[in-house]
Amino acid sequence: MTIETLNTPAALIDIGRMNRNIQRMQDHLSRLGVKFRPHVKTTKCKQVVDAQIAAGAQGITVSTLKEAEQFFDSGIRDIVYAVGMAPTKLGQALALRRKGCDLKIVADSVQAAEAIATFGREHGERFEVWIEVDVDGHRSGIPPEGDALIAVGRALVDGGMKLGGVLAHAGSSYEYNTREALVRIAEQERSGSIRAAERLRAAGLPCDVGSIGSTPTALSAEHLEGVTEVRAGVYVFFDLVMHNVGVCDTSDIALSVLTTVIGHQEEKGWAIVDAGWMAMSRDRGTQRQQHDFGYGQVCTENGEVIGDYVVSGANQEHGIVSRNGEPDVAIAKTFPIGSRLRILPNHACATGAQHPEYQAVRDDGSVQTWPRFYGW
Amino acid sequence: MTIETLNTPAALIDIGRMNRNIQRMQDHLSRLGVKFRPHVKTTKCKQVVDAQIAAGAQGITVSTLKEAEQFFDSGIRDIVYAVGMAPTKLGQALALRRKGCDLKIVADSVQAAEAIATFGREHGERFEVWIEVDVDGHRSGIPPEGDALIAVGRALVDGGMKLGGVLAHAGSSYEYNTREALVRIAEQERSGSIRAAERLRAAGLPCDVGSIGSTPTALSAEHLEGVTEVRAGVYVFFDLVMHNVGVCDTSDIALSVLTTVIGHQEEKGWAIVDAGWMAMSRDRGTQRQQHDFGYGQVCTENGEVIGDYVVSGANQEHGIVSRNGEPDVAIAKTFPIGSRLRILPNHACATGAQHPEYQAVRDDGSVQTWPRFYGW
Repeated sequence: MTIETLNTPAALIDIGRMNRNIQRMQDHLSRLGVKFRPHVKTTKCKQVVDAQIAAGAQGITVSTLKEAEQFFDSGIRDIVYAVGMAPTKLGQALALRRKGCDLKIVADSVQAAEAIATFGREHGERFEVWIEVDVDGHRSGIPPEGDALIAVGRALVDGGMKLGGVLAHAGSSYEYNTREALVRIAEQERSGSIRAAERLRAAGLPCDVGSIGSTPTALSAEHLEGVTEVRAGVYVFFDLVMHNVGVCDTSDIALSVLTTVIGHQEEKGWAIVDAGWMAMSRDRGTQRQQHDFGYGQVCTENGEVIGDYVVSGANQEHGIVSRNGEPDVAIAKTFPIGSRLRILPNHACATGAQHPEYQAVRDDGSVQTWPRFYGW
Repeated sequence: MTIETLNTPAALIDIGRMNRNIQRMQDHLSRLGVKFRPHVKTTKCKQVVDAQIAAGAQGITVSTLKEAEQFFDSGIRDIVYAVGMAPTKLGQALALRRKGCDLKIVADSVQAAEAIATFGREHGERFEVWIEVDVDGHRSGIPPEGDALIAVGRALVDGGMKLGGVLAHAGSSYEYNTREALVRIAEQERSGSIRAAERLRAAGLPCDVGSIGSTPTALSAEHLEGVTEVRAGVYVFFDLVMHNVGVCDTSDIALSVLTTVIGHQEEKGWAIVDAGWMAMSRDRGTQRQQHDFGYGQVCTENGEVIGDYVVSGANQEHGIVSRNGEPDVAIAKTFPIGSRLRILPNHACATGAQHPEYQAVRDDGSVQTWPRFYGW
């Protein structure tokens, strides 16, 4: 199978780029002396995760218990479920641990900690729980300072659970685009989580793990003293949002959507393609960044960026390709009906999720189908 | 199975509301004397489409050939693939027709028409083709006036294909929100497509079918003289975008996402839920409408709207629930950890597509799982 024989739209992985991205992150974190635990929510694909593990990753991070189940079934034991534990999902977590999965779960409130401890005692299970720390105010977690942190730790330990460590994610790093700002937010993520770990230990509570990470902070950290492991997900493919943040070039982006030109509106300078938002996702993550790529950057079928052509609009199965700035009124000649393009996505996690499988392309042009899963 | 036993996040269908929506559209179009051909891209679900057919729908509209294949396999013969035909997909269309599917395909250029005719002659297949007409400048299609329309018709007929009719979709109807504007755009869709049909017939070309539709125009049309059939998709569930357009009430919305509260940021007035953009989709269709619902309107577990609480932010598996305007600093008491909510979506087509199955809820609270498919 080759690219030329693929149906469109299709989600392509450039295996060479992916492997370089995997090696880059692994080398960087090995140099900084920490374990790397990739977040598999980006790909939900065994072949990709196998490549991450082969390169040196130790354990994985998941965003759903379905991911934990699927990857445990494919042989991975060391798994962190990095979303605050809903009490109703404890049965599912228990079942995984009973099968031998070294599943760690997360809490950021006394109520959640108590619910875990109560359920754990009722079922004779000593859950390992990591406390989520809020280092940048963007989402969940407890501030490193203040009484709540210690209270959650005590609720877990007094309740008979294992307090494994702290976990932080500086998701606000996506909002920056200078080296200085990224170094600063990376250090904020490190120091905030380490401060929380120190306070827990000073209160007589155990805290072996300091787990932090996001793709921009992981790549921007200059040192990681006190941190034991880093998590990152989207680095494996990168995307246009990460390009705008400044941690990759468009030539590093390993995920794209192969599409076919199906029509034109010549007076408007539009080519219509068969990659709409169902294939690209509705993610408009570059909308408020320094460069708005619409629904994606247009490339040749072989993956070379074509000037300033973007997918400027999208319906479910229609994409509108146009040239930013001066419209190309000869677009029907530029991209005739039946010609094929690749579109680089805004957000690889969102675009991948729209596809039941990836078409993984080797440097020699041969293609293998790698399934991905979805749902909860 | 009941709602209380469902894992979250889950895509719920309120069967009572869905059946009322189906009946409303069918009754309206029967009154106007036209056939109704629902667009199944919204649901990709056999059980929903069976209900539409049982209520009187005649044939279906699809946005991918995979939809055509799946629904042909489940017994539906009369299918329109309403996206401009890519020459590379003709083999797939041929295979469907050879199996007995009465598949109609669409073209809006001489190049596409010639590609279809050439392929058809090579394979001894007389494809039925409908010409896409552009009635509002929002996407694909040929203007009803001008030479291109006749040229496409001649390319098909001279090439030995069956010219079945014209097809139009006034997608710009989503941008309006008054009865007057909707009646006007509905009439523009009708008159534009009928004008195209008349011009084809005046040129000695056949044109039996006049197929138009979108949910807002279908529900707003006051008469449909000359039209033979109407297509609409999202009406079956409705959503917040349609509520803003003014063609449904929130109490008509039949699709919602069941979610669990997993944490809080009390000072900010946030509750964190396990429905992020993976469960809601990244669709922000209400962003530029009269009422921006963020990523969705919050309801009780039983589906009653709760004031002005919306999902104001979303990460992959985290949603941020907050009160528009004055933040609720007592939100941890309003929505304690473990409490369950339903979220009404911006765009039912996009939200449904994130889920491998629907949980279909009867008025008695019992739940059945209805699978849906995705991909191409």
